[in-house]
Amino acid sequence: MTETKFTTALIVGAGAGLSASLTRGLSKDGVKVALASRSTEDLHDLAVEAGAETFACDAARRSDVHKLFNNLDATVGAPEIVIYNASYRTRGPFVELDPEEVEKSIAVTAFGAFLVAQQAVRRMLPNGRGVILFTGASAGVKGYPQSAPFAMGKFALRGLAQSMARELSPQGIHVAHFVIDGGIRSAARAEPADRPDSMLDPDAIALSYWNVLQQPRSAWTWEVELRPWVEKF
Amino acid sequence: MTETKFTTALIVGAGAGLSASLTRGLSKDGVKVALASRSTEDLHDLAVEAGAETFACDAARRSDVHKLFNNLDATVGAPEIVIYNASYRTRGPFVELDPEEVEKSIAVTAFGAFLVAQQAVRRMLPNGRGVILFTGASAGVKGYPQSAPFAMGKFALRGLAQSMARELSPQGIHVAHFVIDGGIRSAARAEPADRPDSMLDPDAIALSYWNVLQQPRSAWTWEVELRPWVEKF
Amino acid sequence: MTETKFTTALIVGAGAGLSASLTRGLSKDGVKVALASRSTEDLHDLAVEAGAETFACDAARRSDVHKLFNNLDATVGAPEIVIYNASYRTRGPFVELDPEEVEKSIAVTAFGAFLVAQQAVRRMLPNGRGVILFTGASAGVKGYPQSAPFAMGKFALRGLAQSMARELSPQGIHVAHFVIDGGIRSAARAEPADRPDSMLDPDAIALSYWNVLQQPRSAWTWEVELRPWVEKF
Amino acid sequence: MTETKFTTALIVGAGAGLSASLTRGLSKDGVKVALASRSTEDLHDLAVEAGAETFACDAARRSDVHKLFNNLDATVGAPEIVIYNASYRTRGPFVELDPEEVEKSIAVTAFGAFLVAQQAVRRMLPNGRGVILFTGASAGVKGYPQSAPFAMGKFALRGLAQSMARELSPQGIHVAHFVIDGGIRSAARAEPADRPDSMLDPDAIALSYWNVLQQPRSAWTWEVELRPWVEKF
Repeated sequence: MTETKFTTALIVGAGAGLSASLTRGLSKDGVKVALASRSTEDLHDLAVEAGAETFACDAARRSDVHKLFNNLDATVGAPEIVIYNASYRTRGPFVELDPEEVEKSIAVTAFGAFLVAQQAVRRMLPNGRGVILFTGASAGVKGYPQSAPFAMGKFALRGLAQSMARELSPQGIHVAHFVIDGGIRSAARAEPADRPDSMLDPDAIALSYWNVLQQPRSAWTWEVELRPWVEKF
Repeated sequence: MTETKFTTALIVGAGAGLSASLTRGLSKDGVKVALASRSTEDLHDLAVEAGAETFACDAARRSDVHKLFNNLDATVGAPEIVIYNASYRTRGPFVELDPEEVEKSIAVTAFGAFLVAQQAVRRMLPNGRGVILFTGASAGVKGYPQSAPFAMGKFALRGLAQSMARELSPQGIHVAHFVIDGGIRSAARAEPADRPDSMLDPDAIALSYWNVLQQPRSAWTWEVELRPWVEKF
Repeated sequence: MTETKFTTALIVGAGAGLSASLTRGLSKDGVKVALASRSTEDLHDLAVEAGAETFACDAARRSDVHKLFNNLDATVGAPEIVIYNASYRTRGPFVELDPEEVEKSIAVTAFGAFLVAQQAVRRMLPNGRGVILFTGASAGVKGYPQSAPFAMGKFALRGLAQSMARELSPQGIHVAHFVIDGGIRSAARAEPADRPDSMLDPDAIALSYWNVLQQPRSAWTWEVELRPWVEKF
Repeated sequence: MTETKFTTALIVGAGAGLSASLTRGLSKDGVKVALASRSTEDLHDLAVEAGAETFACDAARRSDVHKLFNNLDATVGAPEIVIYNASYRTRGPFVELDPEEVEKSIAVTAFGAFLVAQQAVRRMLPNGRGVILFTGASAGVKGYPQSAPFAMGKFALRGLAQSMARELSPQGIHVAHFVIDGGIRSAARAEPADRPDSMLDPDAIALSYWNVLQQPRSAWTWEVELRPWVEKF
């Protein structure tokens, strides 16, 4: 049982708090990280800290994703690890939802994941190795009221991940989907003092992503649920 | 336990073989049926036979769906039953999929369902009654290899249906999702002679739709799987 | 598409309120019903009303189930329809559960279902037709806290039903599992006056059972969820 | 994010090949391991190698399980980690299954898991910490034909695990269920030479168990699927 070794990673939706934890973790283990986000301004400090490159990219736009991968090819190289964290949601009473916002929810949460994954897999297949991780949500397995757009996006993302896992695992590409069930702790969003660890620590999530990255191919996981110990489900 | 009575229905994606069975069944029971499809040419004979009205509508286009419902309001009236049968798919090796076709798969299969359902629910809510049925597929619960676009569309459709069921059932609107698992028999697509009933008879599917339509609200179903007796699952 | 015709039925766990509705419904449609329960005393009035035979049987006991089917063979004939309604549960904090009660929960809820189904299928297979319906619960798809024994029994029942459906459907035997989610209305257990239809009407459940019994084999359902319109899920 | 530290573990069903990998892994990390199996003969070498204690115990027997935990209390101490690997199955055409074997399948696979877990949790609750891991199978989420008894046992085990997770997680006890999908490699059961890693390496499974043991409570997993990269699902 040998440990899997990867040297390059791409994180899309890099503005998310989870992305910072992933970036630090991967960098510490010697992986060169590329960070993509619609706006790269907020990524500056993280990039400096972790020696990461940043790329502006709207993942829901085909031309942006093409350009991103061409840039990667020309600079840090094609990523062996891809983590898709981007998502968008609108919510409210079903009859009041704005169709354009619904369309955007699906586009950013699921279609962008397809665009990024396709470019990545094209570069992974010739080598017969690579890992693609999708950050899903409980909304991807349970359609909540007043939240049809997010359900549509996250269900679609899960369908994408499952189809890819069935097709690409036997070709050496490990595809996994994470069901994040609960709020993620951040500077802006602290947990109640009397409820310790009632929100997901992004470092704890990153640890589970890391463990999946390291799985030997004789025992791969395609889906992992993560929730705080006190979260109702 | 009183029987539910409806007088108007809209079937979207009316070109599907299933739609003809549904139209005949509903008409026979005194329901006035409106048929919507991108092209209404092929619907002529059915419309005449069942006394149905036809409407041209690309369900993935917001303006088309608006126009459709305005037309219904002005003619046969807002539908108490809506059945969404439209879907589109592209398939093939993941790396060879055409992004535009993937986008269209999601748009027709899931986003169009949202557009139609929203217009319908706006008209149903004031009366606190109505039924919305979505025709899903096994692809909505299992992501098959070389079929990511259909998985994305049908998973998203199921997420939409489940979110709507949780939100709208307590407001009197019955939402149900059908997992059609297997090929549907048609003039163009006959089943092997030595494997009787190995494909779904559209009349048999229509019977189950009808039964769900009739369910008293004390025992509603939100999802029904249907497959031929010999189908592997 | 011809309608399925059955002439004999066996209901096990006949003391349940649902069983009375099923018995009346089946009898009205000309089906000869046999009722089995640990105690037959309470079945007298129903039996007279519906022209049904009653049989004492503890379904979790192998010898009882053998005797029951031998009696049926010798009297009303082998049942073409079998409905298993028996269940037992104990609940409470996990550490306080009585192991004997846990064992009984599994035995009555799941093992008895196996015993009855096996005897039934032995008699159905030579004719290549028959229906077996299992009354499950939301506890069969979701393990609730303080209710491990019922979760074990109802999950096991669902596993039995699904395995049987995969094996026996292609041999002509229709196996279906019902997920009853909510309280069933009865004389002893009325629903709140201000929440109409907030409990399942046993007649409404029986209607869905009947519809599944009638499904043509080109479009069989193996699982049906039923819950009141206002039930949270 | 501090690492979880445990010092004692109990493995039940210790004769399984997976158990040897788990024992070696835990021992190497300083955990004192107790091994329980119906027969302890085959455990001798492993026990010596890993400095583990062995205990004879039929997990499906209430008195055996009581005695086991009393022995543990008096010797190595109550386990902070419990891993339940025991299972039993019979298979074949549904009508030919031996009811006694079916009963045993449920008893060893699921009821024994309850007995062991209850004793363990009684000792963990006062400390508000502990981990209980159940080794499930794909049979616990999919009922295969000709395999109703294993489906019943493994579905029941999953129901137990899910109910326990919902009840006990907020009390500090981490409960997780592993869906092992595929054959486990062993000396007796080698994989085809031309299909490398087509069977689960027990060391690879043990690695994933270990990772779940180490999860911080802000991001616990209750279920993990593991399958070889080339396994169909």
